[in-house]
Amino acid sequence: MVLYIVGLGLGDEQDVTLRGLNVIKTAHKVFLENYTSILGVQLDKLAAFYGREVLLADRDCVETGADQIFADAKDRDVAFLVVGDPLCATTHSDLILRAKALEIRVEVIHNASVMGAAGACGLQLYSFGQTVSIPFFRDEWRPDSFYEKIQYNRRGGMHTLCLLDIKVKEPDFEAMCRGRTVFLPPRFMTVNQALEQLLEIEEKRQEGAYTKDTMCVGMARLGQNDQRIVVGTMEQLLTADFGAPLHCLAITGEVHPLEDEMLKQFLVKP
Amino acid sequence: MVLYIVGLGLGDEQDVTLRGLNVIKTAHKVFLENYTSILGVQLDKLAAFYGREVLLADRDCVETGADQIFADAKDRDVAFLVVGDPLCATTHSDLILRAKALEIRVEVIHNASVMGAAGACGLQLYSFGQTVSIPFFRDEWRPDSFYEKIQYNRRGGMHTLCLLDIKVKEPDFEAMCRGRTVFLPPRFMTVNQALEQLLEIEEKRQEGAYTKDTMCVGMARLGQNDQRIVVGTMEQLLTADFGAPLHCLAITGEVHPLEDEMLKQFLVKP
Repeated sequence: MVLYIVGLGLGDEQDVTLRGLNVIKTAHKVFLENYTSILGVQLDKLAAFYGREVLLADRDCVETGADQIFADAKDRDVAFLVVGDPLCATTHSDLILRAKALEIRVEVIHNASVMGAAGACGLQLYSFGQTVSIPFFRDEWRPDSFYEKIQYNRRGGMHTLCLLDIKVKEPDFEAMCRGRTVFLPPRFMTVNQALEQLLEIEEKRQEGAYTKDTMCVGMARLGQNDQRIVVGTMEQLLTADFGAPLHCLAITGEVHPLEDEMLKQFLVKP
Repeated sequence: MVLYIVGLGLGDEQDVTLRGLNVIKTAHKVFLENYTSILGVQLDKLAAFYGREVLLADRDCVETGADQIFADAKDRDVAFLVVGDPLCATTHSDLILRAKALEIRVEVIHNASVMGAAGACGLQLYSFGQTVSIPFFRDEWRPDSFYEKIQYNRRGGMHTLCLLDIKVKEPDFEAMCRGRTVFLPPRFMTVNQALEQLLEIEEKRQEGAYTKDTMCVGMARLGQNDQRIVVGTMEQLLTADFGAPLHCLAITGEVHPLEDEMLKQFLVKP
């Protein structure tokens, strides 16, 4: 029948659209993608609100087959829920293409995404260039392909939205060596960690894509009641407290007067 | 009290969020911004669905005072409805700043926007650069500041989303000369008109920002039931039929294999 990919928005159970809620209420099965973002509400509360069982779909399930989802969608409507908008920060192109290859109809129900909500800081979304992802560095693994992208955006006067890494269901290798399958608790990169890594790369490359004095906007829990936006230099934001996840970061390009006026509301307290 | 700026999403009355609907139902007054976008549903149907009177706020009302809105919001909650997301394609920064200067609390209720829904064509939103607006050319007035922006995006491998002009409440100067205040019917730029103007500018400037063979994606009524997406060269799309408004256009930069796979679904029929 139809595989509905339903955006849930950013806040809590109240941010679903009427169209989305109707699909969730009537679908044969309801899956929630839980590896690229999180909502400000617990799964059990969400399920109770919908009056439906909500099955978690982790990265393995979605990227290496999604067989369970497709098997159900062959004969009945299935709702696949995604935090934010289904096609924004994380695209589900692969899922859509595989569904179509199996002749399953796909319908996308849009919603707010972090890429839109980032406008809350006052930077014009028009003036953002390409978006970058900042991955957690590990020992020797310190990839910096985001660096040229930020540089190119800034040379063209554009802002850069940085989406910050999320690790869920990381294997605990120590426990695994002892023969048990154990996962580490989920980790969410903070604005502070992202800035440390960005400054480390600038220190190494010295090409001036940005400096510790570049104006940035740290944002946490966008679209939720307690969202937090703080504006300051990279150095100032290194120690600002943003609280619980999710965090993201905007690196400014050329700031126009109206943008500047908006940003002033959120200036870091000295 | 609170000025709620409520995104309505892109399709029809079913695309409001539960949070947004609750505000609309309980606000003292409800305004609808009607000069930057349109929903796929008539005003009377929308008002009937909400069970509320919906007051139209045109550009004059919002940009030169918004006094009526602020007067109401001083003492009671007011809902200001915006098609799409309140902070995306059209920012309402000015309205927000003026409200704050009057010590009126502002809350934004996000929703889907064209900048997110454009992902439906299969191009990754990550890889879009700055967004441009294409204005209707008039006689001698043929502004082309979008040209350098598209050029810069494409040189960096980025796609460009082009938002197309809307004219509502244009004065009919002929009638006005006869002493009557008359407005022309609304006009919405089509994908075809946008491409004509783009090719005219390339013809004039000859800097190769794009050519008639550049792959583009024409999109109409995104997020609505009858949305239409067609992929082809600029030349091919010049004559493609997209039907009713709103239209928008994406000019591709570097297309990655997964994007290519998605785009193929929408290739123009020869």
